[in-house]
Amino acid sequence: MSTVAPPATGAGELWSPEEFTARLRAVPAERYHDRHPFNLRMHEGALRPDELRRWILNRFHYQRHIPVKDALILAKFDDSSLRRSWLRRIQDHDGPVEGEGGIERWLRLGEAAGIDRERLRSGAEVLPGVRLAVDGYVNFCRLRSALEAVAASLTELAAPAIMRTRIDAFERHYRWIETDGLVYFQSRIGQGGRDSEEALALVLAWAATRQEQEAAVAALRFKCDVLWALLDAVDGAGERP
Amino acid sequence: MSTVAPPATGAGELWSPEEFTARLRAVPAERYHDRHPFNLRMHEGALRPDELRRWILNRFHYQRHIPVKDALILAKFDDSSLRRSWLRRIQDHDGPVEGEGGIERWLRLGEAAGIDRERLRSGAEVLPGVRLAVDGYVNFCRLRSALEAVAASLTELAAPAIMRTRIDAFERHYRWIETDGLVYFQSRIGQGGRDSEEALALVLAWAATRQEQEAAVAALRFKCDVLWALLDAVDGAGERP
Repeated sequence: MSTVAPPATGAGELWSPEEFTARLRAVPAERYHDRHPFNLRMHEGALRPDELRRWILNRFHYQRHIPVKDALILAKFDDSSLRRSWLRRIQDHDGPVEGEGGIERWLRLGEAAGIDRERLRSGAEVLPGVRLAVDGYVNFCRLRSALEAVAASLTELAAPAIMRTRIDAFERHYRWIETDGLVYFQSRIGQGGRDSEEALALVLAWAATRQEQEAAVAALRFKCDVLWALLDAVDGAGERP
Repeated sequence: MSTVAPPATGAGELWSPEEFTARLRAVPAERYHDRHPFNLRMHEGALRPDELRRWILNRFHYQRHIPVKDALILAKFDDSSLRRSWLRRIQDHDGPVEGEGGIERWLRLGEAAGIDRERLRSGAEVLPGVRLAVDGYVNFCRLRSALEAVAASLTELAAPAIMRTRIDAFERHYRWIETDGLVYFQSRIGQGGRDSEEALALVLAWAATRQEQEAAVAALRFKCDVLWALLDAVDGAGERP
C-alpha cells in the first residue's frame, strides 16, 4: 500500500472543510481493500469456489461484529438524536424482525455458495489473522474517542462503488452462486452511501483542531488496514500447511 | 440496609429455578431504593419544592445514562435476536422520533416542576455522589459479564409498584407539579414489567453454575446499592455547606 498525506504532527493550521474532506476521501481512494490482490482476483473471476467460500466464511466474522462495534460507538453519544440515527445501523444488520437484516443476508449468501448457515455461524473456520483484525477494530471502537470511532466508519465512502463492481463480477464470473444470494451487496449500496454521508458530517463538525483532524484521518487509515489485513489472512491461508 | 442471602462462596448445589428466582426477587424486596428515607419522605409528601427539584435534576443524570449502559450491554450479545429485543430499551428512552421517549418525558417532568430543560441538560447541579454512582453502574455494565449486567437490570422487578405509588403521591401531595409531567412514571409501569420479565428469563437461562447464580444475585445487590447511593447523595446535599 502507498502512504497518504504528510506525517500526523498535530502542528499547523486547521484544514478547511474542503481540504479536510479531500484528505479523508483520499484515504480509501488509496488504501481501500478493493485494491487488495485477493479482491482483484475475486472481481476478475479468478477465484476457485473453495477460495470464494473461504472469503465468505471469514468475512462473516467481520459482518457479525458490525452491530457490536456500532453499539460501542452508540454508547459514546450523550444525545438521543445522535443515538437514534446510529441505532439504525444496528437495525440494518440485525433486521427489524427475525429473518431480515444484513447478517441474515450474509447467511443467505453463504447458502447460495453452498455453505450451510450453521457452518458459517460456528466460526470454526475463521482464520487467526481475521480474528485479530476484527478484534482490533472492535477494540478501537471500544477504546477510542467518538470522533475516531466514527471516522473509522468512513470506509463506507468507498463501499457503494465496490458493491456495484462486486455484484457485476459475481453475476458474470460466479454463476454457480444463486443470484438471490447477492441481496446483501445490493442493500449496502444505499445504506453505505447514507451512512457515510452522515458520518462525514459528524467528523467535519467534531474535529475542532488540526490534531483532531489528523486523528480522524489516522483512524480511517487504521480501518483500511483492518480490512486489508483481513484479506491478507484469507489470501495467505491457501499457502499455509 | 439489611443484608440478604448467605455469603457468596460459589460452593454448594445449583439452586433450582424456583429458589434462584426467589433469591433474586428477595434482593429488591429488601434493598430497593423505595425504602430509602428520602424516597419515603417523597412519597409521604414531606419534600419541599427545592428538595423535589434537586431529586429531579440529579436523577436525570441517571436517566440520560440508561441508553448508554444498554448499548454497552447490547455490545456483549453475539445474537441478532437478543440484540433486537435489547435495542427496544434504547428506543424506549431515546424515542422513535424527536420529542418522544423516556429522556424527553423526564425533561417534561422537570418543566412541570419549574425546571427549564436547559438547566436539566447542562448537568451543572449534579452532585458528585450521583456522578460516582452513575459512573459506577455504567462501568459495571461496560466491564462485567453479560449475565451480571443483565442481572443488575432486575431492579425493574420492583419498578412498576414504586411507579404506581409515586404517581399517587405526586397527584396527592405535589399538586404544584402539573399532572402531564408524570407521563414518564406512567410509561415505566408497562415497560418495567416487560423488561424485567425478559431479563429474568435470560438470567435463569444463562446462570449454569452456583457461582454464576451467586454472581447474578451480587450484581442485583450492587445495582440496589447504586440507586441507594444516588439517594444518599441527594438526601445529604441539604446538609452540605
